[in-house]
Amino acid sequence: MKPIEFTTRTSSDGVLERDFVVDDVPGVLWSAETGPTGPLVLLGHGGGTHKRAAGMSGRAHKLVLDGGLSAVTLDAPAHGDRPRSAYDEEQVEIMQRLMAAGDPVGPVVEEYNADIARRAVPEWRATLDALQRLPEIGAGPVGYFGLNMGTAIGIPLVAAEPRIAAAVFGVFWHDSVAPAAKEITVPLEFVMQWDDEHIPREQGLALFDAFGSTQKTLHANAGRHKEVPRFESDSATRFFVRHLLS
Amino acid sequence: MKPIEFTTRTSSDGVLERDFVVDDVPGVLWSAETGPTGPLVLLGHGGGTHKRAAGMSGRAHKLVLDGGLSAVTLDAPAHGDRPRSAYDEEQVEIMQRLMAAGDPVGPVVEEYNADIARRAVPEWRATLDALQRLPEIGAGPVGYFGLNMGTAIGIPLVAAEPRIAAAVFGVFWHDSVAPAAKEITVPLEFVMQWDDEHIPREQGLALFDAFGSTQKTLHANAGRHKEVPRFESDSATRFFVRHLLS
Repeated sequence: MKPIEFTTRTSSDGVLERDFVVDDVPGVLWSAETGPTGPLVLLGHGGGTHKRAAGMSGRAHKLVLDGGLSAVTLDAPAHGDRPRSAYDEEQVEIMQRLMAAGDPVGPVVEEYNADIARRAVPEWRATLDALQRLPEIGAGPVGYFGLNMGTAIGIPLVAAEPRIAAAVFGVFWHDSVAPAAKEITVPLEFVMQWDDEHIPREQGLALFDAFGSTQKTLHANAGRHKEVPRFESDSATRFFVRHLLS
Repeated sequence: MKPIEFTTRTSSDGVLERDFVVDDVPGVLWSAETGPTGPLVLLGHGGGTHKRAAGMSGRAHKLVLDGGLSAVTLDAPAHGDRPRSAYDEEQVEIMQRLMAAGDPVGPVVEEYNADIARRAVPEWRATLDALQRLPEIGAGPVGYFGLNMGTAIGIPLVAAEPRIAAAVFGVFWHDSVAPAAKEITVPLEFVMQWDDEHIPREQGLALFDAFGSTQKTLHANAGRHKEVPRFESDSATRFFVRHLLS
C-alpha cells in the first residue's frame, strides 16, 4: 500500500485542515493548529454530501476545539470528488424521483447504501492504517460518528474494525443494518428524529434495540428527518471525550 | 404568608447550602459561595429519599459549579423531616411488600404519587413565591428537574406553573401523569431506562410522546431502573444553561 499523501494544508479558527489521498480516496484530516493531535474520530457524511460539507466541518471543529480530539473525513464512494458509475447515477435518480413523489424511499436507500458500505468499509480501514502509521497519530482506539448514510457505512465498519472503541450512529432504517448492529459491543450514542417523515419511529427504536452494546444511549428529538438539533454534535463530542480521553 | 426563614448555613466545595422553612416545609437553597445567585432550578427528589440525598446534592453542585445556576430542594410530603400519616405508612408498606415479592408496583406507585403530588404542588409554588421575593433571586424563569416521584410531582407542577420555563423529567409510568403532560409546552429533556424492570418500555415511550412540547428530547439508556448514568445530570445542567442563561 502507498503511504498517505498530503496535498493542501489550510487552517481556520485554530483548526488545521490537511487534504490527503489514500489509494485514490480523498479525505481531510482536521487537528489542532498547535499542540498534539488528539485521538481520531472518523466522520462519515450523509448521502448526497461530501467530506467538506458544513456538517462535517462543524463536527470536526467541535471535536478539535471543544474535545481536544482530531477528526478525519473521506468522500464516500460516488460522492464529492469521486466518480459515479451508471449504477450510482441510476440509484440517485430513483431516490430523487421517490422523494419528489412523496413515496417511501427506505427500501431503495437501504439497498443502495448497503452497496456503498461494501465499497467504503475497506477504504476506511486502509485510511486508518495509513493515518496510524503517522508518528503524530500512532496506534490507539478511535471513534466513529456518522448519521444517515454515515450510519449505513459505519455499522458494518464498526462491527469489523476492532480499533473503533466508541461510535455515534443514527437516523437510519432497521432491516439492512440490523445483522451487523447485533455484532457491535462498543459504547454507543444513537440519534433519531421522533417525527421523521421518511423513517418510521418503530424502525429507529428497533435499530437502537438491536445493538449488542451494554452501554448505549438513545437520543430521540422531536422534529423531522433533517431537523437533528445542533446540540447533538456537542453531546457526541463529550461522548468521545469520555470514551477516548478519560 | 410568612416570609422565608433561613436556619442553618453551611458550605462545601464552593457551594453555599442554606436550610430554610416555608409554611412548615423544610428545604435547602444551593448557590455559589461567591458571585451572583444564578437562575433557580427546582429539584424534586425520588420516592423514599429526601432534600439532602446524595443525588440531590450531586445535581445541585453540578448546577451551581458547572452551570452558574442555583438550586432548591424540598422534602416532599411524607419524606425526609416531615411527618407521615397512617395512610402514608400503609402505602409505603404495600409498595415494599410488592417489590419484595417481585410483583408489579406501578399501579400503587402511580396512585400514591398522585396523592403526594396534590400535596406537593402548592408547596413548591409557595416556595417559589417566597424565594423570588428575595432580592438576590427576584423574578424570572426557572427550571424543574425530577425523576421517579420527582416526575410525578413535577408534571402537574410544570403544567400549572408558568414561571417554569424548562424541565427534565423521567423514569415514570404513563397513565396517571399523561393528562397533565399533554398540557406542558416548555422545552423538555426526558430520561428513561431501556431495561427498566418496573416500568414497561412502552410506558416510558408513551409518556415522552404525550408531552405537548415541540422541543423535547428523549434520553433512553441501556440499564435497569436504578442505573440512570451519572452523565445525565451533566446533560441536564447543560440543558438548563441553554434555556435559562442564553
